[in-house]
Amino acid sequence: MKALIYHGPGKKKLEEVPKPSLREAPDAVVRIIKTTICGTDLHILKGDVPTVAEGRILGHEGIGIIDETGTGVSRFGKGDRVLISCITACGKCEYCRRGMPSHCEQGGWILGNTIDGTQAEFVRVPFADTSLHPIPGSAEEDAMVMLSDILPTGYECGVLNGAVKPGDTVAIIGAGPVGLAALLTAQFYAPASIIVIDLDDNRLEAAKQLGATVVINSSNGKAVEKVMAMTGGKGVDVAMEAVGVAATFGICQEIVGAGGHIANIGVHGASVTLHLEKLWSQNITITTRLVDTVSTPLLLKSVMAGKLKPKQLITHHFALD
Amino acid sequence: MKALIYHGPGKKKLEEVPKPSLREAPDAVVRIIKTTICGTDLHILKGDVPTVAEGRILGHEGIGIIDETGTGVSRFGKGDRVLISCITACGKCEYCRRGMPSHCEQGGWILGNTIDGTQAEFVRVPFADTSLHPIPGSAEEDAMVMLSDILPTGYECGVLNGAVKPGDTVAIIGAGPVGLAALLTAQFYAPASIIVIDLDDNRLEAAKQLGATVVINSSNGKAVEKVMAMTGGKGVDVAMEAVGVAATFGICQEIVGAGGHIANIGVHGASVTLHLEKLWSQNITITTRLVDTVSTPLLLKSVMAGKLKPKQLITHHFALD
Amino acid sequence: MKALIYHGPGKKKLEEVPKPSLREAPDAVVRIIKTTICGTDLHILKGDVPTVAEGRILGHEGIGIIDETGTGVSRFGKGDRVLISCITACGKCEYCRRGMPSHCEQGGWILGNTIDGTQAEFVRVPFADTSLHPIPGSAEEDAMVMLSDILPTGYECGVLNGAVKPGDTVAIIGAGPVGLAALLTAQFYAPASIIVIDLDDNRLEAAKQLGATVVINSSNGKAVEKVMAMTGGKGVDVAMEAVGVAATFGICQEIVGAGGHIANIGVHGASVTLHLEKLWSQNITITTRLVDTVSTPLLLKSVMAGKLKPKQLITHHFALD
Amino acid sequence: MKALIYHGPGKKKLEEVPKPSLREAPDAVVRIIKTTICGTDLHILKGDVPTVAEGRILGHEGIGIIDETGTGVSRFGKGDRVLISCITACGKCEYCRRGMPSHCEQGGWILGNTIDGTQAEFVRVPFADTSLHPIPGSAEEDAMVMLSDILPTGYECGVLNGAVKPGDTVAIIGAGPVGLAALLTAQFYAPASIIVIDLDDNRLEAAKQLGATVVINSSNGKAVEKVMAMTGGKGVDVAMEAVGVAATFGICQEIVGAGGHIANIGVHGASVTLHLEKLWSQNITITTRLVDTVSTPLLLKSVMAGKLKPKQLITHHFALD
Repeated sequence: MKALIYHGPGKKKLEEVPKPSLREAPDAVVRIIKTTICGTDLHILKGDVPTVAEGRILGHEGIGIIDETGTGVSRFGKGDRVLISCITACGKCEYCRRGMPSHCEQGGWILGNTIDGTQAEFVRVPFADTSLHPIPGSAEEDAMVMLSDILPTGYECGVLNGAVKPGDTVAIIGAGPVGLAALLTAQFYAPASIIVIDLDDNRLEAAKQLGATVVINSSNGKAVEKVMAMTGGKGVDVAMEAVGVAATFGICQEIVGAGGHIANIGVHGASVTLHLEKLWSQNITITTRLVDTVSTPLLLKSVMAGKLKPKQLITHHFALD
Repeated sequence: MKALIYHGPGKKKLEEVPKPSLREAPDAVVRIIKTTICGTDLHILKGDVPTVAEGRILGHEGIGIIDETGTGVSRFGKGDRVLISCITACGKCEYCRRGMPSHCEQGGWILGNTIDGTQAEFVRVPFADTSLHPIPGSAEEDAMVMLSDILPTGYECGVLNGAVKPGDTVAIIGAGPVGLAALLTAQFYAPASIIVIDLDDNRLEAAKQLGATVVINSSNGKAVEKVMAMTGGKGVDVAMEAVGVAATFGICQEIVGAGGHIANIGVHGASVTLHLEKLWSQNITITTRLVDTVSTPLLLKSVMAGKLKPKQLITHHFALD
Repeated sequence: MKALIYHGPGKKKLEEVPKPSLREAPDAVVRIIKTTICGTDLHILKGDVPTVAEGRILGHEGIGIIDETGTGVSRFGKGDRVLISCITACGKCEYCRRGMPSHCEQGGWILGNTIDGTQAEFVRVPFADTSLHPIPGSAEEDAMVMLSDILPTGYECGVLNGAVKPGDTVAIIGAGPVGLAALLTAQFYAPASIIVIDLDDNRLEAAKQLGATVVINSSNGKAVEKVMAMTGGKGVDVAMEAVGVAATFGICQEIVGAGGHIANIGVHGASVTLHLEKLWSQNITITTRLVDTVSTPLLLKSVMAGKLKPKQLITHHFALD
Repeated sequence: MKALIYHGPGKKKLEEVPKPSLREAPDAVVRIIKTTICGTDLHILKGDVPTVAEGRILGHEGIGIIDETGTGVSRFGKGDRVLISCITACGKCEYCRRGMPSHCEQGGWILGNTIDGTQAEFVRVPFADTSLHPIPGSAEEDAMVMLSDILPTGYECGVLNGAVKPGDTVAIIGAGPVGLAALLTAQFYAPASIIVIDLDDNRLEAAKQLGATVVINSSNGKAVEKVMAMTGGKGVDVAMEAVGVAATFGICQEIVGAGGHIANIGVHGASVTLHLEKLWSQNITITTRLVDTVSTPLLLKSVMAGKLKPKQLITHHFALD
C-alpha cells in the first residue's frame, strides 16, 4: 500500500509499504477514506517530537472502513464506516476509567507517533472498540474527519476546561484550526461575546464568519489594551491560548479577569513566565490538557443534529499522492 | 394611586389607595412602568394561596423608576430604571448566602403575597439593593418584564436544575409561558433536540417558532409512546414538568432515560405517585425549586448580547385600567 | 463443584454442578475464596426478582483467585487475587463510558441474576478486565468482600448522590448493612452530625459504634418530630433512604430541609407518594441509583490507607456448606 | 484607646489614639477581645504592601463584642460576641453575588490595609451584617480567632481549590500556619495520605501531630525524588503551595501527577517559571485565590461539632502591650 513515511527532520516520502495486519485480539485494520494533516505533523517534520522514529507512517486523524477485526473486537465488523480517534484508549487502565485516555497506560497519542498512523491506505488501530466511533449512515465524511482531533481538542481543552457559560466574555488567542474549533464549540454555551485575536487578517476574517463577535489583529501590540477597554477594565471570563508560545500565554494573563479561567490549548516547546506576583490574589484557574476525545460521542450527536457544522473548517482537499 | 386589590377568592378591583412610603432603611419606592399577570396571580384569585390576605395589592413582576430610597440603599438613586425581581433577597441570611434567596428569612416571594405588590402605580421594595437590578440604557422595556419571574423560573428550575448539555435530548411538558421560557433558555446549551408536549396546538405552534425540534399534542394519550420511539426506547436526558399536575409529572417518569433528570417547574396543589418500584435502579435525579432569581444578571447580559429575545414571549399589552 | 442453586421461590439447595468454563475472549474463571449473602439474595428467594430463572447459582459478591483467563484478558493472570464487582462492565458501551456500568448494555447486575453467580466454588466472570479489581498483597480478605457491593452501594447511592459535605446534618433511615455502609463512608466528608433512624435497638447500637452522632428508634412514630427539633425546625441537609418502603421514604420527605437532598438507596417493590404540593418550592434533589461500582478503586485506596475499616460490618462467618 | 500603628517600613508603635466611631449605616464598632499577628502583617512591616499608608492601625483578624451598630445593621446588636472576617463584604456587588467577596467593589481585604484594623481596643467594621459572624455561646475564643483568616485561607485556597477527595495523595509545601490550616481541613475529605514538606523540623513535627501521614525535610534537595518514589512515579493528586516563592511552586510542578491540581495559597512577590513545555499535556489545573471567607459558616459548624480543632494551631498568647 501507499503511505507517507517520516525519514527524520525535514524528510518525508510517499512510499509503497506492506499493508498492516492484526497483532492483538482488540486490534482492527481500517482502510482509510480520508485523513488530514495536523499542525502536530508539521512539528514532527521539524524534528520537534523525538518519540517519532524514522520509518514511521505519519497521521493520527481520519475516517475509514473496517477491513479486519481481531477476536477481541465486539462493537465493529468488516465494512463498518468508522471515525478514528487521535487518542487510543485501552478502556481498562486507571486513566481510561478516570475519563483521561490521553494518559492511557497502553494508548494515548500513539498513532503516527510511536506506532504507524493514518496517512496511508490502511492503518492498524489497537483497542478498536474503545478507539473508534461508528459513523451514522447519513453523516458527511468531510465533517467527520474534523472529529478525530481538532474539534475535541478545541472543545475539551478550550471550552470545557475554560468552563464557558452563558453570558460570558470569552477571548481566543490564535485563529488557527484548533482556535477556530474552540470558537465553533464555545457557541454551544451562548457566551455574550467571543473575541478572537490573531496576527493574520485572513484568519480573523474566517473567525468572523464562524461566529466571533469581535476580532483583533494583535500585530500592533494593542490587543490587551483593547480587550481591557471593551470589558470596562474587568478582563474576560475565559481566555484560551491556542498558539503555544510565551507571548500569547502572556496576553491571556493580562486579560483574564478576577475569578476567570485561562485554558491552555497550545503545544508549548518552552517554559513561560507566570505572573504570580499579580495573579496570586486574582482567583484564577489555569488548565492544561492533552485531548482525551471523550467528548467525541457528544460532538457526533451535535453534528448529526445540525448544531455543529465542522465542514466550515475545511478549505482544501487533496488526493493522497 | 391606582392599584389592583385582592378581595378574597374570585374578587379583585382596581381601586384608589395611598401611595406606599419607605419603612425600613433598605427600602425603595418604585414607580411602575410595566407589570404582568402571572399564572400565580390566577391561582391567588381562585383562593389557592392562603398567605394572600384580603386587601392585598397583587403582582410580583415589573419594571419601574426609582422614586425614593431609604438610608440603607447604596446601589440605586432616584430616577434609576430598575427591574423588580419576584424574589426579595435580604442578602444576609444563611439562605441568601447559599444562593437560595427563594427561602430568604425575611424575603423570598413576598411581593403581591404577604406585602403589597406591583400591579399598582407605585410599589415599596424591601432590600432594594439586593432585590432590584439596574436596566441598561438601551434595553427594551417589554423584554425586561419577562426577566422578573418567567425567564429565571424556566432557566433555573428547568434548564439549570435539569443540567441540560450539548447533545442532549430534552422534553418540556407544558408550553405555557414558563415552559416556553425553559424552551428559550435550554437553547443556551445546544441540546441535540427539544421535544415540547402540550394539549393545545396553538401553544405547540408557538413552541415551534421558538425553537422546539419536535412538538407533540398529547391529547390522544400517545405522547409517551412517541417519545420512546424517537429515542430508540432509551428515553430522554432531561424531562421538564411545566404544568403542575400528576398526569404531566407521570409522563416525565415514563420518558426519562437511565441517568436522566426530571426537573419540576410546575406549582403542584396535590401529591403525585412516584414509581420507585421502577425508578429506584434508573440513576435518575428529580429536582424541585422555587425560583431564586440568582441568574437574572446572566439573563440580562444574554438579552443585551442578543442571545436571548424575551419579547418573543409577549402576545398582548394592556393599560393598567 | 459445589454451588447454591435457586429452585424457585423459597427453594435453594447446595448441589454438585459442573465447574464453569471460559466462553468469550474477555472471560475469566475465578475460584471463590469468600462470598456473602446480600439482602437482594433474600428478595430472590422470596420470588421478588423475576429475572432469576430456576437453576441459577446465586451470589454477586466475593473475592477469589484467577483460575483461567480468556484471550481478551490482559490485566489479570492465573493466581491473581481479585475482588469481584457485583456489577459487570463491558467498558465499551455508551453507559460504561458515561460512568454508569449499572446499565451496561451487556453487563450490569447479571451475576447471580441472569448468569450464574458467586455462591459456588468457581464463577465465570465476563469482561474480567473491567469487572474485577486486583487485591493488594497486604489486604485483609474479610474487608475486601464488603467492597463487592455493600460499600460502593452505600457510598455511591447514599453519600455521593446525597452530596454530603463538611458541616452537614445527615440522616440515614435504616441501619441494615447498606445503611451502615453509608454511615461509614459519609464520614469521609466530615459532616457535623449523622442521625441514624431504625426500629431495632441492636442495629442502632451498632450504628453508634460506627460513628452515628445520634440514633433514634422510630417505633414510637416520633422520629420526624425529634429530627425537626434537633435541627431547629430546618430539617436535614441530606436524608438517605436505606430500607426500600414507602414509610421510610415518607420520613425522608418530612425531614429534608430546603435545598436538601434525598438519596434513595433502598430497593423498592411499590410506588410511593411524593408530596410535591409541599416540596415543589423546597429546592430539593431526589436521586435514585443502582450501584455502578465505579468508586471501588477509591474505596480500595481508602481501605489500604486505613481510612475505611469495612471489617466492622462483619458479624458472622460460615463455611459454604 | 491603644492601637498598634504602622509608621513606614520597619516601624510600628503601640499608641493612644481616638476610639473609632460609626460612619455609614452598615457599620459596627467592635470592642476587640482577641486578635493575632498574620504573616501578612510582617510583610507590611517590611514595606512590601504599598496600599498600607503610614498611620494605619494594623490587623485583620480577631473576635470581639459589638459596641455600637449603624442604622443599616440588622443581624447584630450591642453586646453580641462576633468573629471578624479578614474580608469585608458589601453583599451586593457582582463579586459578592458570585461568592467572591475577596474582590468586593467596596470591601475585600481592607481592614489593617486601606482602613484601620483590629490590633487595637476597638475597630470599625464596614458592612457588619455580611462581614461579621455570630459566635455561639459555648465556643472557645481562642479557636474562633483562627477562623478570621488562617483556616478559611487554608481551606478555600488549598483544599477546596485543590479539590481534595477521598483516596487522594496530597502534598502540602510549607508547614507555616496556613499550611497547617490546609493540613487540618484537608482531613475533612479523608485523603489516603498527606505529605508535608518544609525546611524546619519543628514545623514538620507539628505537622505530624496534626495529621500528616509523611513529612519531608526538603533542605537536602531530595523532596521531589522522595515524593515520586512514594507515588510509584505517578506524582500526587493535589500539590498545595503554602510559602509564596518560586522554589516551592517549582516543587509543585515537579510532583503533580497527570490530571492533578496545584493549589496556590502563598503570597508571591515575584513571577515564577511555569514549565508548559512539560505540563501542556499533563491535564493539570492550577488555581490562585485570595481567601473569600465564604466557608466561615461551614468551618464554624465544624468547630462546634468537634470535627475541627483550631486551637491546635495556637502556640503563644500575649497581651496587647
